[in-house]
Amino acid sequence: MAKTTDALTRRDVLLGAGAVTAALGTVTLGASTAEAAVEKWDHEADIVIVGSGVGGCTAAVTAHEQGDSVVVLEKAPFVGGTSKKSAGVLWIPNNYTLRAKGIDDKKEECLQYLARYSYPERYVAGQPNLGLAALEYALLEVFYDNASKAVDRLRELGALRTAEWRMFALDRSATDYLDHVPENKVPTGRALGPVSAEGQMGLGVELMTQLGDAVEKRKIPVLLQHEAARLVVNAAGRVVGIEATSADKKVTIRARKGVIFASGGFAHNREYADTYLRHRYYGSCAMPSATGDFVRIAGAIGARLGNMTGTWGTQIVLEDALRNHVLPTGVFFPPGDSMLQVNRHGRRVVNEKRNYNDRTEAHGYFDPSDAEYPNELMFMVYDQRTAEGFAGAYPLPPTPTGAKYVLQADTLDALADKLAARLKDIATRTGNFSLSPAFLANLKTSIARFNGFARAGRDDDFSRGAAGYDREWQMVFSPMNAASKYAAEKAPNSTMFPLSDTGPYYAVMLAAGSLDSCGGPVIDASARVLDGSDKPIAGLFGAGNCIASPSRFAYYGAGHTLGQSLTFGYIAANAAHAEPSSKA
Amino acid sequence: MAKTTDALTRRDVLLGAGAVTAALGTVTLGASTAEAAVEKWDHEADIVIVGSGVGGCTAAVTAHEQGDSVVVLEKAPFVGGTSKKSAGVLWIPNNYTLRAKGIDDKKEECLQYLARYSYPERYVAGQPNLGLAALEYALLEVFYDNASKAVDRLRELGALRTAEWRMFALDRSATDYLDHVPENKVPTGRALGPVSAEGQMGLGVELMTQLGDAVEKRKIPVLLQHEAARLVVNAAGRVVGIEATSADKKVTIRARKGVIFASGGFAHNREYADTYLRHRYYGSCAMPSATGDFVRIAGAIGARLGNMTGTWGTQIVLEDALRNHVLPTGVFFPPGDSMLQVNRHGRRVVNEKRNYNDRTEAHGYFDPSDAEYPNELMFMVYDQRTAEGFAGAYPLPPTPTGAKYVLQADTLDALADKLAARLKDIATRTGNFSLSPAFLANLKTSIARFNGFARAGRDDDFSRGAAGYDREWQMVFSPMNAASKYAAEKAPNSTMFPLSDTGPYYAVMLAAGSLDSCGGPVIDASARVLDGSDKPIAGLFGAGNCIASPSRFAYYGAGHTLGQSLTFGYIAANAAHAEPSSKA
Repeated sequence: MAKTTDALTRRDVLLGAGAVTAALGTVTLGASTAEAAVEKWDHEADIVIVGSGVGGCTAAVTAHEQGDSVVVLEKAPFVGGTSKKSAGVLWIPNNYTLRAKGIDDKKEECLQYLARYSYPERYVAGQPNLGLAALEYALLEVFYDNASKAVDRLRELGALRTAEWRMFALDRSATDYLDHVPENKVPTGRALGPVSAEGQMGLGVELMTQLGDAVEKRKIPVLLQHEAARLVVNAAGRVVGIEATSADKKVTIRARKGVIFASGGFAHNREYADTYLRHRYYGSCAMPSATGDFVRIAGAIGARLGNMTGTWGTQIVLEDALRNHVLPTGVFFPPGDSMLQVNRHGRRVVNEKRNYNDRTEAHGYFDPSDAEYPNELMFMVYDQRTAEGFAGAYPLPPTPTGAKYVLQADTLDALADKLAARLKDIATRTGNFSLSPAFLANLKTSIARFNGFARAGRDDDFSRGAAGYDREWQMVFSPMNAASKYAAEKAPNSTMFPLSDTGPYYAVMLAAGSLDSCGGPVIDASARVLDGSDKPIAGLFGAGNCIASPSRFAYYGAGHTLGQSLTFGYIAANAAHAEPSSKA
Repeated sequence: MAKTTDALTRRDVLLGAGAVTAALGTVTLGASTAEAAVEKWDHEADIVIVGSGVGGCTAAVTAHEQGDSVVVLEKAPFVGGTSKKSAGVLWIPNNYTLRAKGIDDKKEECLQYLARYSYPERYVAGQPNLGLAALEYALLEVFYDNASKAVDRLRELGALRTAEWRMFALDRSATDYLDHVPENKVPTGRALGPVSAEGQMGLGVELMTQLGDAVEKRKIPVLLQHEAARLVVNAAGRVVGIEATSADKKVTIRARKGVIFASGGFAHNREYADTYLRHRYYGSCAMPSATGDFVRIAGAIGARLGNMTGTWGTQIVLEDALRNHVLPTGVFFPPGDSMLQVNRHGRRVVNEKRNYNDRTEAHGYFDPSDAEYPNELMFMVYDQRTAEGFAGAYPLPPTPTGAKYVLQADTLDALADKLAARLKDIATRTGNFSLSPAFLANLKTSIARFNGFARAGRDDDFSRGAAGYDREWQMVFSPMNAASKYAAEKAPNSTMFPLSDTGPYYAVMLAAGSLDSCGGPVIDASARVLDGSDKPIAGLFGAGNCIASPSRFAYYGAGHTLGQSLTFGYIAANAAHAEPSSKA
């Protein structure tokens, strides 16, 4: 096969390169393109950014202000990504509001919290890197070192107005998602939020409107409906640009210093979910464009993948997810006090008030004796007190039966029958998930046991209400309606109240869902994407849900994903700025 | 950067191809080599097989007998791979011994068992493909269709002597690993084993000696200590050979029809384990050469990966694993009846007699309330009855304290102290895994509750002993020593006996381990490796632990991994035979 002629045309070379590219995965797989094969560049910038969520916009503004020219690609027809759908909170350790209050969120102590939460099975205080691998530790350290700086820089540039994010109903500092471990020395106050010009705390729309405006004001081109297709690589293996697809046309963008991916995860890529996640996620709040493009695109040039089993979890309403895998919201905090969740055996399996990310893991439990996932669906069961007293706190409708996904019955027996019937209706969508024969009897036992815990104020099985998180976030997400006739009746543990001995009773079917995945190409402490030998791939950077999360599976507090994305977007822009230009 | 001259030398072309290859992952990442860049082939065959375990040897013999020339590469200095370390059992549905007994292991029924076990959350009887994706179902179907044929072919060729594998102590047909679900209509008798010329049932050594002899007798070259490095791909994207490394030298082998990988998984690749597996595995019984080479090598040419979170699990003795990640054996069946396992809280969490693959999943449980893995280590606690009566059944030593990993104490209080002290000694290796303050009290409660179950004959918590598997495999792995003074005392459930009220008591620390991983490139029903668009990569085939297991995580019965590997090795050889020659 080897060609024997010594005289070849340029076309032969290009075909040769193309053939090798094809052999290495074919164009449809997102293999890279050789720089020599690019006939013309449609756009050119020092730094090209993929994704216009909080990570991408932070990187864009940061880069621009350092004198780098920037182009942003966005797959969707508008700016903001999943960040725009979010609550807009930013988890930033050692932030300026803490400092202003004289609270010293010390690096050494904060890193213990981060390491303990992210690597519980390897964290050892006093050991080198706290027991973590060098890269794992370095990523936590650089997050701590840059998070606060990044926000301060955006504020200084007038790109973002923030304030301490106060837990609304309480008007208290936000409590971290693992506040009750001894390693957390500053368990409240690390959350910031975006405020309007009038000083009003906003959500993701506010956050991304401000950051989007900052990008626009700087005249940074944002190419909407441009989907990243593959990287352009020069003969030395450096990333020098990117090919995108827009309206079925190929668009090439040269990146003289580097390409920063700050795009979505793979929550809506069914194949990746089957491959990388251990159990079933029925839906995700991520934007529909979160199809894991970066896994494919960076994988094609040898990026090392990490953390691939990870998602930012949340429980979701099953029946909504069956209608549409893309969900507007999740069950971030199951409302109510006279409420519990049980599995197909009618048994409680989790602290219902734990944070969404950790709580959702309970759905993945595999029962070795029956070789099945008995918690795949869970049933949130509650009484009239919760239905009325906490009405309107999602997923409770404003009136007790104001949503089709709410089942109501006069007795527990009748409720179990209704659940069984509803499950039968959707059996082909759930692998015939059904109530076990012991469901009803166990449900009654579970309620009796729960009621005992509620009266005693202590949950001996799952520690519900023991952590500050459980109690305080309940007041944020589902305070008792003040006008309710039930408000006067209190129990010693605010998160638990005995279920009534008489109906009506209610049930909502819940499943595992996600905000997005959190696995992908692995970055180093400069946000450079690493290859399989842990060497940086020159010219390629990453931040946000598209990369292997620097915090692994841990969700440190409200605003975790946005804070991490913003910080690594900032780090990436700084690192790309320092790169020499690749332009010949 | 694009070259502007039209006159280039052949060297330029090769450098160009090399540069693109480098850009696409660099040589150290195992990117492929363009056929045009191969200056000479050191070896040549119709079919090249990587790995000499049961899958590789079956493929080699099958291919040879069809007239294909074959070369086998083996990374280790000897033939046999992990198969050689195994028990040598082959799980083969509808096998000739069943047929001889008039047992009809019907396809439609058997597929229900396979689908139910492999995809519990999607299996629905009566639905198209039983609720599975088309490819998932096709892989189960082709396994059923070929398993028995493959063994019959090897027997007919004189390559392998087999017989029904009888559970030794019992001399009964082997019970499947999920015998008690209604979908399993032939719950015993699907296991075969290798028999010597004298008719003696053997282990993995017997199996691989016979198959290795069959390869040798056919003068099929086996290149030992040849490590596959990267595939050679022609301009059309077809795999046409492979580059290996031997004694630091590059060796090229042309494969005119195809390359079949039947190599190991990634059990001993720490980076892959961190990336793809959700929780921590402390060791593996796989050969040390199981470092996931196929994931890298096939990934570099765009293979789709699947099932990446999967392992063939087994519990292992922690302290052995801390000495060496490569283990001689696992705790396949925890011995004893007056024995239970508890986690760091002193609580039982699993049916101790469940099959190793499913039981091991219990170690991965994440506790959302404390954000930790409380079952990461489990403690097998037992009394003098078990220590003596089941002595010698691994991990019980021949005498009660005949192994350093056995802790002994006169009382449970003292045993807990010893456990705590031992855990402290190894704290830096386990992320400071320690007993919770409630351990001792809960241990006592757990034993009392277990003793109640043992007296009643029914385990209301974890159904220990309810399935035939639990009872019958106990008789295989750990029958009560007949001479023991305890043999006369029986309880209604043979798997449970109340622990004595008096000491001494014993404990062994267990962790999650594996036989190997079971994720990798995805194959189709012809064992062809698929790319990211689900198109076969021409010339590339896979079987065994190196691919995405066609059974997903499920371990159907004794000999599951070997039976599956043998079957897909056979399928791969047949499919490769049908390929046209790629030789110019």
